[in-house]
Amino acid sequence: MSIREHVKIMKEQSPRVAASPLSMRDLALRKVREALVYNKESIFAANQEDLARADQEGIASAVRKRLKFDEHKLSDVLAGIDSLLSLPDPVGRVTLDRQLDEGLELKRVTVPIGVIGVIFEARPDALVQISSLCIKSGNCAVLKGGRETASTNKTLFDLIHKAAVSAGLPEGCLLQASAHSEIDELLQCDDCVDLLIPRGSNRFVRYIMENTKIPVMGHSDGICSIYVDEYADFDKAIPIIVDAKTQYTAACNAAETLLVNRKIAPSFLPKAAKELAKAGVRLRGTEEAAEILERAYAEQNARKTPSRRAMTSADQAASVSADQAASVTADQVASVSADQVASVSADQTAQTPDGRIRSEDILKDDSDFRHEYLDLILAVKLVGSVEEAAAHINRYGSHHTDSIITENDEAGERFMSLVDSAGVYRNCSTRFADGFRYGFGAEVGISTSKLHARGPVGLDGLVTYKYRLYGSGQIVGDYASGKKSFHFKDLG
Amino acid sequence: MSIREHVKIMKEQSPRVAASPLSMRDLALRKVREALVYNKESIFAANQEDLARADQEGIASAVRKRLKFDEHKLSDVLAGIDSLLSLPDPVGRVTLDRQLDEGLELKRVTVPIGVIGVIFEARPDALVQISSLCIKSGNCAVLKGGRETASTNKTLFDLIHKAAVSAGLPEGCLLQASAHSEIDELLQCDDCVDLLIPRGSNRFVRYIMENTKIPVMGHSDGICSIYVDEYADFDKAIPIIVDAKTQYTAACNAAETLLVNRKIAPSFLPKAAKELAKAGVRLRGTEEAAEILERAYAEQNARKTPSRRAMTSADQAASVSADQAASVTADQVASVSADQVASVSADQTAQTPDGRIRSEDILKDDSDFRHEYLDLILAVKLVGSVEEAAAHINRYGSHHTDSIITENDEAGERFMSLVDSAGVYRNCSTRFADGFRYGFGAEVGISTSKLHARGPVGLDGLVTYKYRLYGSGQIVGDYASGKKSFHFKDLG
Repeated sequence: MSIREHVKIMKEQSPRVAASPLSMRDLALRKVREALVYNKESIFAANQEDLARADQEGIASAVRKRLKFDEHKLSDVLAGIDSLLSLPDPVGRVTLDRQLDEGLELKRVTVPIGVIGVIFEARPDALVQISSLCIKSGNCAVLKGGRETASTNKTLFDLIHKAAVSAGLPEGCLLQASAHSEIDELLQCDDCVDLLIPRGSNRFVRYIMENTKIPVMGHSDGICSIYVDEYADFDKAIPIIVDAKTQYTAACNAAETLLVNRKIAPSFLPKAAKELAKAGVRLRGTEEAAEILERAYAEQNARKTPSRRAMTSADQAASVSADQAASVTADQVASVSADQVASVSADQTAQTPDGRIRSEDILKDDSDFRHEYLDLILAVKLVGSVEEAAAHINRYGSHHTDSIITENDEAGERFMSLVDSAGVYRNCSTRFADGFRYGFGAEVGISTSKLHARGPVGLDGLVTYKYRLYGSGQIVGDYASGKKSFHFKDLG
Repeated sequence: MSIREHVKIMKEQSPRVAASPLSMRDLALRKVREALVYNKESIFAANQEDLARADQEGIASAVRKRLKFDEHKLSDVLAGIDSLLSLPDPVGRVTLDRQLDEGLELKRVTVPIGVIGVIFEARPDALVQISSLCIKSGNCAVLKGGRETASTNKTLFDLIHKAAVSAGLPEGCLLQASAHSEIDELLQCDDCVDLLIPRGSNRFVRYIMENTKIPVMGHSDGICSIYVDEYADFDKAIPIIVDAKTQYTAACNAAETLLVNRKIAPSFLPKAAKELAKAGVRLRGTEEAAEILERAYAEQNARKTPSRRAMTSADQAASVSADQAASVTADQVASVSADQVASVSADQTAQTPDGRIRSEDILKDDSDFRHEYLDLILAVKLVGSVEEAAAHINRYGSHHTDSIITENDEAGERFMSLVDSAGVYRNCSTRFADGFRYGFGAEVGISTSKLHARGPVGLDGLVTYKYRLYGSGQIVGDYASGKKSFHFKDLG
């Protein structure tokens, strides 16, 4: 059968899954848990095949780490299932209960979305997590994982599917797509699939968004900012910035931009830059930020070096006045060819960061801040106010997660109101943007769409609602003629 | 300035509108109300210009009725504004409040969507309604109404915009687009517009959906069904069906399909058909339904006519056995050319409905039920169970609003669970699917999308949410290393 034929059956069966009782869905999760524990050796064996293939292909060690499914990963996914089992039913929650008139009661009730397609990276734990979330929320799911974990995925999927069916869910409740070509087939099933959740590289997510009529939930960029306000506590600010940048640089919630209030920049920026340099972070930024850092660097070295005669050549370069450095830079950068830039970058990255912004790292235009580094690089800019910080973030950020560091409540609230992002934080790291850390048990992804679900998407993001209207023979004609009238009484 | 330039400014100003206090938004509504009352004569005069132009162009009287803006329409829109003023702030509602750890508190708070484009039909009252909803919900709006009411719209918009600005909202909070070409310009502003709400014909809504990357909320079809269960109370069922079909046939929530349980069809269908015929409704349907009606019609006439000799030719046609009628039909219908069909239809529509299904009105295939008549025509089919009714509705309906007529609670709940529509009703007319009737004060439209907002969209559908995280210096590294751990405590 083709994917389309499979998905058509899934669509027809989805109302049965949606109407299934919580007891059946929780039983399915318990059976999945059991099956994973009981069959762990065959899962590990399948994973060995994937790893052996990866080694043959000479895969990068960071990627290999994600492919691996061992006792440790198993215990993580089991903890995830336990957490889902402990959560209340996301389906059937009454979010509005209103008597429109005597004997005419309106209820807004949460229901599963229906059929969800999830296309995810080569991580076997993601397959377990996503299918568990879909089972708990009464959704049917088409799962397509990365080809690098094909053997592990197949073993895991078969166990999960069998467990779900043995609990009473219909055969068509879960489907695994394995060939890459099946993604394009899935993108065409807009009459059967209610939602697509692509995870992976920006380029891949954009491809999906541009090639389907199915609503897509996800994020294509994670350009997160931290704004250090004039009322910031530096002792909070610096560890937060280091954490947000370095704790896991490849994550979408890692910080890419540091905005500093102009009033505190001369005292704050050099301190922060020093700690960031220690953590291996290279800075980019505006001329204004570069000048402050350059001056601080020069002063520090002047203090260290009692006599000018003892200066090393590195120090000499550093003592070039900020104005000179700035005037040189623009032309230099502009005249460097693409190849040269690449070789310069490689050189520079190899150099140990020193808390300064090198001439080739000066950002001349605000639109240069529209960049997701996913690397030990942070872009710095000075701003005059909370309003200016918010305007920069709204224009050049990606509406993901942004944090203000301030001890001033008014500034904090102003920032949180004005910044139009899924997560607006105060005095903490952007890295908290995560379904587990929000207590959602698990997440299918993080959404930067503004509609339906925003931020980390757990069970709540996998349901929608319907209006149930319970009558006793009411017709609209009686209300239109004035014979009857609504009295709108909220119940419960 | 082009629409794009205007909308760009609007986008930049939208966080200020989103952060505006309720007092300012309510003041704006009160000022709008005042301005409409104070300037009613100039509004009516502008409307006279539109009506004169419409008369010159020989516009249909039904359309003319919608263009008209008089004392009656004014009092309707004023009542709408009063109702919005009485509703609580849709913005800033805390829908989740969770302590993740000591000093680390997560709040999910409702926020306006941002910039909304609404393209609506030639109804001046719609302009007032939509702009009031957007003001109350803190959204910026681009409004494009039908050209037939250009003069009235201009007068109304200028008054509303001036009132909003005088209350303290930014200049760019509302914008009127007047030229039709501006719609295509607006469709390209996917970096500035967060949501489009098109209202109007199916063809128009589909055009919008297919020509923009901006999320679109709305419905392109309203194929609503009523299922009469074997446990139905006929005295409720018949008035509900007549109301749902005839109370306002051009509405999207009018019923187009009648599903009847096979067990009660012989007793129920002829009774219902008789009342529907009286209300001017012509029936289409399956052969099975046609046979039942044909037999009932013949029996009734046999009772009326003591002697066969006295039969009229009309009665003779009616007394053809159901089997004969059915066998003739398929071939006849198939061999009729398109022109003939048109002429036949015209003839038939002119005939008074008699509670039978004419041979050319027999629907041979279930996919024939995928039709929105918006006319005094109802399509009838027999089904064996609630499950079969739900499967038909899910496959051939448009996920708008569907009703079951039953006195049996189990059947009622089963139907409401299995039918995947924005509105699932029991024992009442589908015509209740409306923002006013749900007590939402007003609506911008009815959504058949499954994501974000479903059904009538009032203030609640015009907000989304953001996560606010209040910390005191927390970094993720401490939680990753095990130095700290989350305790997830729901507050309030």
